[in-house]
Amino acid sequence: MTQFSKYPSVEKLRELAKRPINLTSGDLFTPKRVEEMCVVHPHFRLLFATEKVDQTILEHLLKLAEEAQVHEKMKAMQAGEVLNFIEGFESEDRSVLHTSMRDFFDHPNTGKKAQEAREDALKENEKLKAFMDENDKKGTFKHLVVIGIGGSELGAKALTVAMAHYNKPGRSLHFVSTVDPDNAASVVESIDLSKTLVASISKSGGTLETLTNEALMRYHFEKQGLDPKNHFVVVTGKGSPLDDSSKYLERFYMWDYIGGRYSVTSMVGGIPLAFCLGYEQFSQILKGANAMDKHVLQTTNSRENLPLMSALLGVWNRTFLHHHTVAIIPYSQALGRFAAHLQQLDMESNGKQIDKKGQPVDFDTGPIIWGEPGTNAQHSFFQMLHQGTTPVPIEFISFKESQYQQDLEVKGSLSQEKLLSNMFAQSMALAQGHKNENLNKNFPGNRPSRILLGKQLTPFTVGALLSYYEHKVDYQGFIWNINSFDQEGVQLGKVLANQMIDLFAKRRGKASEKFKPLALGEAYLKHLDNL
Amino acid sequence: MTQFSKYPSVEKLRELAKRPINLTSGDLFTPKRVEEMCVVHPHFRLLFATEKVDQTILEHLLKLAEEAQVHEKMKAMQAGEVLNFIEGFESEDRSVLHTSMRDFFDHPNTGKKAQEAREDALKENEKLKAFMDENDKKGTFKHLVVIGIGGSELGAKALTVAMAHYNKPGRSLHFVSTVDPDNAASVVESIDLSKTLVASISKSGGTLETLTNEALMRYHFEKQGLDPKNHFVVVTGKGSPLDDSSKYLERFYMWDYIGGRYSVTSMVGGIPLAFCLGYEQFSQILKGANAMDKHVLQTTNSRENLPLMSALLGVWNRTFLHHHTVAIIPYSQALGRFAAHLQQLDMESNGKQIDKKGQPVDFDTGPIIWGEPGTNAQHSFFQMLHQGTTPVPIEFISFKESQYQQDLEVKGSLSQEKLLSNMFAQSMALAQGHKNENLNKNFPGNRPSRILLGKQLTPFTVGALLSYYEHKVDYQGFIWNINSFDQEGVQLGKVLANQMIDLFAKRRGKASEKFKPLALGEAYLKHLDNL
Repeated sequence: MTQFSKYPSVEKLRELAKRPINLTSGDLFTPKRVEEMCVVHPHFRLLFATEKVDQTILEHLLKLAEEAQVHEKMKAMQAGEVLNFIEGFESEDRSVLHTSMRDFFDHPNTGKKAQEAREDALKENEKLKAFMDENDKKGTFKHLVVIGIGGSELGAKALTVAMAHYNKPGRSLHFVSTVDPDNAASVVESIDLSKTLVASISKSGGTLETLTNEALMRYHFEKQGLDPKNHFVVVTGKGSPLDDSSKYLERFYMWDYIGGRYSVTSMVGGIPLAFCLGYEQFSQILKGANAMDKHVLQTTNSRENLPLMSALLGVWNRTFLHHHTVAIIPYSQALGRFAAHLQQLDMESNGKQIDKKGQPVDFDTGPIIWGEPGTNAQHSFFQMLHQGTTPVPIEFISFKESQYQQDLEVKGSLSQEKLLSNMFAQSMALAQGHKNENLNKNFPGNRPSRILLGKQLTPFTVGALLSYYEHKVDYQGFIWNINSFDQEGVQLGKVLANQMIDLFAKRRGKASEKFKPLALGEAYLKHLDNL
Repeated sequence: MTQFSKYPSVEKLRELAKRPINLTSGDLFTPKRVEEMCVVHPHFRLLFATEKVDQTILEHLLKLAEEAQVHEKMKAMQAGEVLNFIEGFESEDRSVLHTSMRDFFDHPNTGKKAQEAREDALKENEKLKAFMDENDKKGTFKHLVVIGIGGSELGAKALTVAMAHYNKPGRSLHFVSTVDPDNAASVVESIDLSKTLVASISKSGGTLETLTNEALMRYHFEKQGLDPKNHFVVVTGKGSPLDDSSKYLERFYMWDYIGGRYSVTSMVGGIPLAFCLGYEQFSQILKGANAMDKHVLQTTNSRENLPLMSALLGVWNRTFLHHHTVAIIPYSQALGRFAAHLQQLDMESNGKQIDKKGQPVDFDTGPIIWGEPGTNAQHSFFQMLHQGTTPVPIEFISFKESQYQQDLEVKGSLSQEKLLSNMFAQSMALAQGHKNENLNKNFPGNRPSRILLGKQLTPFTVGALLSYYEHKVDYQGFIWNINSFDQEGVQLGKVLANQMIDLFAKRRGKASEKFKPLALGEAYLKHLDNL
């Protein structure tokens, strides 16, 4: 039996899950419930009246948090204790210190590892500020191409899209991530390389896509008579194959205690965000993230801890009510790529099969994360959410105020008000349902959701939102007692991909020394040949 | 019992699902299987050696297709018979004729309704060609803003992104969809309105978002001293509130037998695609879609019918093996927004709770569709797909050749070859798994996927791909005997949203005549006030 299944609260919650709450009951879903089922935070409110919980279930979820010692684990993580390990098996054995990347403001953490990490991060931030301030002054680079994939792309992309309103004029940003050659080709076609800065981002310095795309981009610069040395910078680990002063204008560092998916507030996000917004706005993002880090550290009353409450409701939906997925539906166009970041953050962290004691899990771990912004999603897949055969728990996100503040009153209300109205309406409709004798117009209801409400999406609050989700994910890992910080599940695909690549190389007489025949692979190549 | 559950093959398939195939067995997953488990089509191959089927299961799936009379239903649909209905309940009672929108080439359908629809569509195509040819000659408009949501946005967006390589130089395209005012504000900020064409798209002419955003865009034109009449066109139903010659430069029509999610090859996609690519390339897209329509109509040997085989495998995974989701993973950056289109196409069509006889379904209907392109997805959520506790069936899509044909040999192979290698490797790895005594490095395998392989993504093949998925979805509807063409599940949210909007309007003393108090809504507004 796993550690998780041994917690007394887990047994109790499994019992409670057999007699589920019914949200379609008007006696249950009342204005008073909407008022009370809420976590109040200085910048956000989490509204969960439409989750399938009552006071008894909440009580046991809060007990689960205590039994799993989430506050102790959070404190240990932010102080720099080694948390990235599996007992009894070879594992990464690392600290987890993304919180140190932004710990420059009030009451920095006093853990020794955390202090060291903060000081290293501060040096990189100073280097970044100097580099970007100079570019702001001289105007050398108008375009930035980021070469990076996974954690080196998704978080930075989500945040630069979210913050586009704050962009410095005339800046453009492009990502070259996949090994699909059309990705690089379409970017090169669209920009003036003489005004372009390229940032290669790879912690290990060994990512296939990034090395291939860097070679491809250098080739394009050289073809245009430009010296890549004057255009390329790198973000990598010290001593990695990419840590080579002869090839880059500047080198920025990251460390093994920063997982790719947790790296937005390191130089991985720092380069694109400071390029687009200026260093000062990037610093506001760090400040927002740091404020949320402090909130989770200081709020040991679990009921008042914003990410922890979301984590507990998520565990309830996933592990006890057995929902396979979570839809992230921001009613905010600026968060259009946020779900793609959360897919990696959550699924790569918690899509695991063994716990930290090396036991195969006997419960469901991380769910499938997906979603698109509202109101668009209403006109796309909400049909299925209301009337399909598989309920989908939803996390709505929205803000009281728009970013641009350019709105128009049409028929008595602003667009922003129509936007919020739609979100509240969906949450209510999914919970309440609506009986109709025409079964095609019948709404079963009783479908759970919660709402994260903020005042406005700014650099500060987007930093806080980023950190909110990082902590939702690590709290869930703490509760399930799994290692949220490694990703062994990506290795097998890499090995087989290299064997397949070697089959192609062999056809040109360039197979590597490691070449191994692969009969299944040859069978696939035959289909390609016969197309 | 539903019609579906009465089919003899369904009983047999339910039995077979109890003793599932194990793909990790090396005896089963052989090169011969890869060779044989394939559907060959003039432009594509569907490879399904990595699905959890054997000859017996396939045989019964093919019997199911016969029992459900899918070929008869397809013929009826393309001829224009009324298929959009539910027996015994008030329903839309319409034909379903998106195939007529592109039936201008070889052997057009002889059904009377289909012929009429084709002729109407042809007139709109001629109008479109004249309008766009003139703009190509005069260069009046450089930017196009499409105001539309759901079916009026997603398909057109997916295809314009996919075809960006073929764009006429200097054209830019923007979508204003959601009621979030920041959507319109960010678009207006980025373009020269004097060179901008705006297309409002709404079949009913009553879509809240579209009406609101059109008012907002007209306001911006007028603020800049521009007369909207010289810049706005409309796509709508004849006689709709938007069918007003005094307000538009040109009106394009669509009809009640074209569902929004099936409307890409009508003027809904025609305007943006012909604007970006020119009419001739749009016509190639129609030709490709038509070729696939003819393939499904003529291929009554189910085993050779490309979308039908995919539909049957999907039904097996969803209804018999009980997988809740399908991940669409194109190894093609150009298909970056394709999954978002398929989310609507599939989930809005088949996310249903009653069958066409008005019976509540006693089986699982349409799955949750989600996904991002590879190789990016490998570096994001594939950890969970390999080692998470919930298997996810995958549909891979890829092409032998890149679009730009700008590739570089690095270490003996091209990027396109590396891309394909990764896709084949993932499919194999997910199926085979890999045993390891370190349980954190153990891969359970036995996770199903299939691969749709094409030669190159061109206007013709993207049209065929679009139609392939439309028919996969309608075949699944035919098999389940559900109505894939209505969307009653979106109505309740609309009603409640209007009530919420009225609460906001009331605060300004502008409540509508229909105002109804909504105590739950007031409770949510109180949270907004207290933020």
